[in-house]
Amino acid sequence: MSAEKSTAGLAGVVAGRTELSSVGQEGRGLTYRGYAIEDLAANASLEEVAYLLIHGHLPAARELDGYRAKLKSLRSLPSEICSTLELIPGTAHPMDVLRTGCSLLGCLETETDPNSAADQADRLLATLPSMLFYWYHYHRDGSRIGFEAPEPTLAGYILHLLHGSAPSEMARRAMDMSLILYAEHEFNASTFAARITTSTLSDYHSAITSAIGTLRGNLHGGANEAAMELIERFADPDEAERELLGMLTRKEKIMGFGHRVYREEDPRSTIVKEVARALAVSPENKRLFAVSERIEQVMWREKRIITNLDFYSANAYHSLGIPTPMFTPLFVFARTTGWSAHIIEQRKDNRLIRPGADYVGSDPRPYVPIDERTEPGR
Amino acid sequence: MSAEKSTAGLAGVVAGRTELSSVGQEGRGLTYRGYAIEDLAANASLEEVAYLLIHGHLPAARELDGYRAKLKSLRSLPSEICSTLELIPGTAHPMDVLRTGCSLLGCLETETDPNSAADQADRLLATLPSMLFYWYHYHRDGSRIGFEAPEPTLAGYILHLLHGSAPSEMARRAMDMSLILYAEHEFNASTFAARITTSTLSDYHSAITSAIGTLRGNLHGGANEAAMELIERFADPDEAERELLGMLTRKEKIMGFGHRVYREEDPRSTIVKEVARALAVSPENKRLFAVSERIEQVMWREKRIITNLDFYSANAYHSLGIPTPMFTPLFVFARTTGWSAHIIEQRKDNRLIRPGADYVGSDPRPYVPIDERTEPGR
Repeated sequence: MSAEKSTAGLAGVVAGRTELSSVGQEGRGLTYRGYAIEDLAANASLEEVAYLLIHGHLPAARELDGYRAKLKSLRSLPSEICSTLELIPGTAHPMDVLRTGCSLLGCLETETDPNSAADQADRLLATLPSMLFYWYHYHRDGSRIGFEAPEPTLAGYILHLLHGSAPSEMARRAMDMSLILYAEHEFNASTFAARITTSTLSDYHSAITSAIGTLRGNLHGGANEAAMELIERFADPDEAERELLGMLTRKEKIMGFGHRVYREEDPRSTIVKEVARALAVSPENKRLFAVSERIEQVMWREKRIITNLDFYSANAYHSLGIPTPMFTPLFVFARTTGWSAHIIEQRKDNRLIRPGADYVGSDPRPYVPIDERTEPGR
Repeated sequence: MSAEKSTAGLAGVVAGRTELSSVGQEGRGLTYRGYAIEDLAANASLEEVAYLLIHGHLPAARELDGYRAKLKSLRSLPSEICSTLELIPGTAHPMDVLRTGCSLLGCLETETDPNSAADQADRLLATLPSMLFYWYHYHRDGSRIGFEAPEPTLAGYILHLLHGSAPSEMARRAMDMSLILYAEHEFNASTFAARITTSTLSDYHSAITSAIGTLRGNLHGGANEAAMELIERFADPDEAERELLGMLTRKEKIMGFGHRVYREEDPRSTIVKEVARALAVSPENKRLFAVSERIEQVMWREKRIITNLDFYSANAYHSLGIPTPMFTPLFVFARTTGWSAHIIEQRKDNRLIRPGADYVGSDPRPYVPIDERTEPGR
């Protein structure tokens, strides 16, 4: 295949079709099934967006009530999962915990009917926060949490499980907006991984397990955690500017900036920046927000690089009292909606995803019997 | 991105470079780092091939001894994994067990240094058979197997753990050849999934977990199991021909045939067919082999479609006394070598793998407040 064009990272290569989201025809703008992300973030809840993505339309009031009630009824974990979460050390990477929990759920409740992906998605959406916070609390203080928090929404349930008490309406709303922004984003790396797994006719849990493992990397979901670590390094905006200029001179990678698709503006960043600003009430969070704004200004002035969704999401999550290692898991909770919709879409018109490679290795060479081989450098 | 060419399944699209294997410049032939698959299958062992792929050269005798000794020393499972394997039902899908075992190992022995992939690979190569057969025997008869079988090779260890006794030399050799044939195959779907996961800077176990889940599908690793189910359906060659012609008329998918890359011959199939022929000693296995040959003849006569590696691998494994649900796990044991080499190669010159999509969904549309929505069909 060496005669064909090799496109590193498949940048600009169209790998398939989707009805689920349109990211920037001219490098900006984002819609989910035609609805602007700004409208959805301002008006909808994660459940409405999940329903839109997975079932194809915004739910009417009765449908939404039924959907929320169904998700709420599915939150409890099988005892095998609780036992395994107790066996996983408290020092493990939370993304590894979710990847393993999802995979284990696939052992216990294996998808056998490829038309059941929407049901599998409901179950997983409901249980992922249960898995993460069961593991988290058990290893923090030995407590075995229950899953009966009376929160009707996923956003509320997440915050309630984490903090062990009912969140404020403002916190619920901010979490809902953040989850909506993270829900879906076309053929990003984790979604594309899920589609590849699906394309071999594998099952739902295999596909989501691939996606979680792919999201884990710093060039993808891990970016919001890396952004927080950056922001927290600086005492004030002036120090941030000084240090950042040094990092740029040393060509260090600055996380939370730039995007393969967006060039002028990540529309999600604009929204979450205002969420982060509203949540920055304490002096500490006000300071971090000011540091963040300065980093944004310097990056634009020096490099003409835009903030992406991950940058101000870090501020918003920090203000909501979420430990940094939980940032990427929140991304999982949200993106499971988009991943699930892509699995369903891939199955509707499936073709095995199997690209070619440009072979740049050794020419054909004769086999060397073991007695005639020499160790390199000896 | 709608102006660009959409290539379903990325067929014929070059997604990157590799030095690891060259599959058919003209639709035939296979080399691993320049060595013909025929030479490797006839002369080498899986450990030599693993070393070649992962470390870059065929090991000298001393290197091979050291490598085998290292792999042998790494076979024991952490108690957390044994406990979890006991919690996973005996009715689970063996590929789900391996996917979960690999993911759990990543929780317990998390890769923190991206230069340690070769060490992670050694550990995983050594433990995957331990995981599968610990789970298998525990749920079959309650026994908790140990991992001290005195087999110096992976091929021997696999057969010893499965059957609980030392295999014959012929069985060891056949298993070694099969593992070599399955070790590596360029940008197949599971390998490409592993490279995507790696491309976000995620860890070794996330990448292999993606690969296992991707291999599970019937259009990929699951094909050898599906081929066995087909072959076992027929009492004799004449019945096979009759029934197969009916299946072709009904346009049913015949597993174990055809390949995205090979058109004239899958060179691995030619080799494994002779392995299968040699192993078909019992009347039952002779009959299954004759049935298989007839299926091969009819498919070529009617459709000009070739057997791929999976077809006669099914016969060979059946003759080795391997239960059909273990066929794809054997593929995992072998391909973990190729996957690991691809992870290392991807990291050497990494770029995020993130293609685009052709948006074919709804035009932008105004948001509909919940009270104004109607349920479809009501």
